[in-house]
Amino acid sequence: MCPMELLKRRIQQDGIVKGNDVLKVDSFLNHQMDVALFEEIGREFQRRFADCGVNKILTIEASGIGIACVTAQSFHCPVVFAKKSQTKNIAGEVYATKVESFTHGRVYDVMVAKKFLGPEDTVLVIDDFLANGAALEGLIDLVEQSGARLAGAGIVIEKAFQPGGGRIRAKGVRVESLARVSAMSEEHGVEFAD
Amino acid sequence: MCPMELLKRRIQQDGIVKGNDVLKVDSFLNHQMDVALFEEIGREFQRRFADCGVNKILTIEASGIGIACVTAQSFHCPVVFAKKSQTKNIAGEVYATKVESFTHGRVYDVMVAKKFLGPEDTVLVIDDFLANGAALEGLIDLVEQSGARLAGAGIVIEKAFQPGGGRIRAKGVRVESLARVSAMSEEHGVEFAD
Repeated sequence: MCPMELLKRRIQQDGIVKGNDVLKVDSFLNHQMDVALFEEIGREFQRRFADCGVNKILTIEASGIGIACVTAQSFHCPVVFAKKSQTKNIAGEVYATKVESFTHGRVYDVMVAKKFLGPEDTVLVIDDFLANGAALEGLIDLVEQSGARLAGAGIVIEKAFQPGGGRIRAKGVRVESLARVSAMSEEHGVEFAD
Repeated sequence: MCPMELLKRRIQQDGIVKGNDVLKVDSFLNHQMDVALFEEIGREFQRRFADCGVNKILTIEASGIGIACVTAQSFHCPVVFAKKSQTKNIAGEVYATKVESFTHGRVYDVMVAKKFLGPEDTVLVIDDFLANGAALEGLIDLVEQSGARLAGAGIVIEKAFQPGGGRIRAKGVRVESLARVSAMSEEHGVEFAD
């Protein structure tokens, strides 16, 4: 079975839909983590972004880190994770941006040390979810501030019925989502686009 | 070169000592992450805890997650990461404990969903640092609450001049630290025990 089908079946089997927009995948993706599945996911990202010259993977804490690290094994490159902070005291040694978390109802300062991202880098952004797109836009902002080249974004699950993916693709960013959820409900479960 | 020597050389080469108790290893361990080094670390933990029947790895967000995931590949088991939260609203579906962060000067509620840890599990706790031991004691508390068996703890860098490691070993917990720092200073850098 191809990695995307494996992932989609897993989402349908183990994902729990709450209301019309919460999809809990904490049994394999973002609380308990199935690293064998992550290996499949990482190889698929590598296949899609092969020949893009990726030499660094950027993600955001916390749940992106595991997928990013296992993906980085396929690219033979390091990972940098952006740190969330609520402090106002940001030194001049970091790129910083603000990310609004709809889940947690607050705004985070998100930062990466300047010494780990620069014009010599070609960056693949990795995250577990894409919904409203706030986290991904924050990561893209950090890449732009650094002068690095953005190869694109690799997302495990995109809620395609929410606006983030469309808005970010419209800016010309290549976004590759392995599972695009087109609709979901407690009654009918998860449906996928394409 | 054996993995421990590789790690120690890397700490001496790229670690930055500030004052007498801050060791910055953010260029390879906990901000930028060298996953090739993590693979060596993971194999070494597997070698040390082989035949312990480990079927689950437990860590804490955020910087433990990458090492835990790569280590889990050697054990062919899933990872569960404990979540930090400042909310008081803890449902009955989680094991919860409190962890004091000396770095950030505050107390976190730390939690794991009950469905991911239970008496059927044999748990290896993984973390990047051991210093005062607060985070590790919190993780051990979660394992004890769950009724799981604790195989031990695998730590990348232990500040052996701080009290955590001694106190936790005195309780009978097996703690395997790959690099034990016995002393450090801006003038003389890092010295290792044994």
